[in-house]
Amino acid sequence: MSNGVKLSLSEVSQLASDSLIAQGFSAPQAHAISATVSAAERDGSTSHGLFRIPFYVNALKNPNTDATATPVVDFPKPAVVRVDACNGFCPLALQTGLPELSRLAKQQGIAALAINNGYNIAALWPEVEHLAEDGLVAMAFTCASSYVAPAGGNKPLFGTNPMAFAWPRKDKPPLVFDQASSVCARGEIQLHLRDGKAIPEGWAIDKHGEPTTDAAAALEGSQLTFGGYKGSSIALMIELLAGALIGDLFSYESTEKDTAGTGAPFGGEFVLAIDPGTFNADGGHFAHAEQLFEQLLSQEGTRLPGGKRHRTRQQQSDIVIPESLHTTLLELCR
Amino acid sequence: MSNGVKLSLSEVSQLASDSLIAQGFSAPQAHAISATVSAAERDGSTSHGLFRIPFYVNALKNPNTDATATPVVDFPKPAVVRVDACNGFCPLALQTGLPELSRLAKQQGIAALAINNGYNIAALWPEVEHLAEDGLVAMAFTCASSYVAPAGGNKPLFGTNPMAFAWPRKDKPPLVFDQASSVCARGEIQLHLRDGKAIPEGWAIDKHGEPTTDAAAALEGSQLTFGGYKGSSIALMIELLAGALIGDLFSYESTEKDTAGTGAPFGGEFVLAIDPGTFNADGGHFAHAEQLFEQLLSQEGTRLPGGKRHRTRQQQSDIVIPESLHTTLLELCR
Repeated sequence: MSNGVKLSLSEVSQLASDSLIAQGFSAPQAHAISATVSAAERDGSTSHGLFRIPFYVNALKNPNTDATATPVVDFPKPAVVRVDACNGFCPLALQTGLPELSRLAKQQGIAALAINNGYNIAALWPEVEHLAEDGLVAMAFTCASSYVAPAGGNKPLFGTNPMAFAWPRKDKPPLVFDQASSVCARGEIQLHLRDGKAIPEGWAIDKHGEPTTDAAAALEGSQLTFGGYKGSSIALMIELLAGALIGDLFSYESTEKDTAGTGAPFGGEFVLAIDPGTFNADGGHFAHAEQLFEQLLSQEGTRLPGGKRHRTRQQQSDIVIPESLHTTLLELCR
Repeated sequence: MSNGVKLSLSEVSQLASDSLIAQGFSAPQAHAISATVSAAERDGSTSHGLFRIPFYVNALKNPNTDATATPVVDFPKPAVVRVDACNGFCPLALQTGLPELSRLAKQQGIAALAINNGYNIAALWPEVEHLAEDGLVAMAFTCASSYVAPAGGNKPLFGTNPMAFAWPRKDKPPLVFDQASSVCARGEIQLHLRDGKAIPEGWAIDKHGEPTTDAAAALEGSQLTFGGYKGSSIALMIELLAGALIGDLFSYESTEKDTAGTGAPFGGEFVLAIDPGTFNADGGHFAHAEQLFEQLLSQEGTRLPGGKRHRTRQQQSDIVIPESLHTTLLELCR
């Protein structure tokens, strides 16, 4: 990349923390966000890296946001931990809740973590990957802002509602996927708009509910779910799990509450962890799963989800970010 | 339907039980299967109704199948119940395990049921619907026979791997979906073959890995996952949950074990149940979810998953089955 600024991973982390703290985030909130941003940069997942810092800062325009909140933990049932993010950001709430979730899952066989009242601008893969590094199978679900039409419908109702899954592997990074229920990420449409390119058919409808390949019309209209009504059922399930089940907001309610138009999704996250040792006292699940992965990879043209991120992690020595982003972050540090 | 035989629901149930018992199934195995078959006929879900009885009988050609097995229950961890179907059929294993799963979910907040070593020819919606009728949120996953290519691949690896979800409603049947990870059910391709019709593009590839609209070539080749690589990730997740996690078979292993070619999937099923009361002591989740459903249905062209089945349940008085199927079942009763 020309016009880029080279940074080491610790410089990325420092820059993220410094800019957040300078903008009024407490040190624990800033460090937790910085950790997820650094993990994304480490893995080449640019759209969840330093690029996100201005979005976190922008979320403070909403007068309800508390950048210094201390999450509150409780245990409503023996296999459930709940963390109230108290209008702060999800990374710190997750940092607080994940060790408890791990402990409960190993004790009970399966356990759940509910995060409430949090701003969630991050990807979901860091939390499921973290749990799988601890030997657990994990799933995570969250709503978002209301951008996606239900199957057959003509206006936004669902968020891009991601679902993440991780499976632990021996001596290898976990298998991880983290996928939106929409065909594409909202950012992909924004990139097409910026580059003056048409979007593929099937990504979106315009504000009248008609199919469109115009990026601007798509952003004014609705994104579509992947796989038609099947993806729509999954988006609905995620609204119910991360919304009504845990007593938190649906995507459309999050959007309604965002009166300052920050675009930062507010609400809940639902995370599950299961201990495979419950069923495999000898750890046989590790080798068994590897047989499936071998079978899959023996077919030319296939790949394991998350593999690209892990290859980048191994191969990338320096992180390069655009000069313009670097300048923005330095300004935030003042 | 002309040439049909009219049956009451109790006659459906009796005919199913009688034919299975006459073919060597124990009364408990036969009655549990009969209950799922009757529920399907009641809801107009013909493909999982009496039509399935000959498939159950055919599964006995596999010398490992035990039509008189008594499931064995254990509790490996406080929030987990495991039922060994002992080479019998899943309906009886589920009937044995579901009350325990309900009890644990209410006690622990979340719980899991693993079924092992079972033949699973039934749909998954009856178990999640049953749990939701008991006030719980439920999910179920199972592998199948190896018919589906992974994204980018060219031959079968995954099963049609369904995932089911149910949400409890007050004074209404639960919201339920039960969807394959493949674009379509295998039976839909078989119906196109029978009727001499081409299948839509995107359903399948032939044995050389090339796209095909020929139903016979599709059945010899591979079905495709819904939504491309996203559906493929879900199919992979289901293999891991219902296979390696609970110490049971992957779809391709089930197919390899089916040396008699019965086509009856053998292996595990993984069921989750979550008590929404854990997070909503006042039952507020009911009304909250209804607001989402209203928002969804206010968009013309949308529907709630499972709605058609529940409407049929209310409206259908008599069940009509083809004369040929009726004759087959009477022959099985002899």
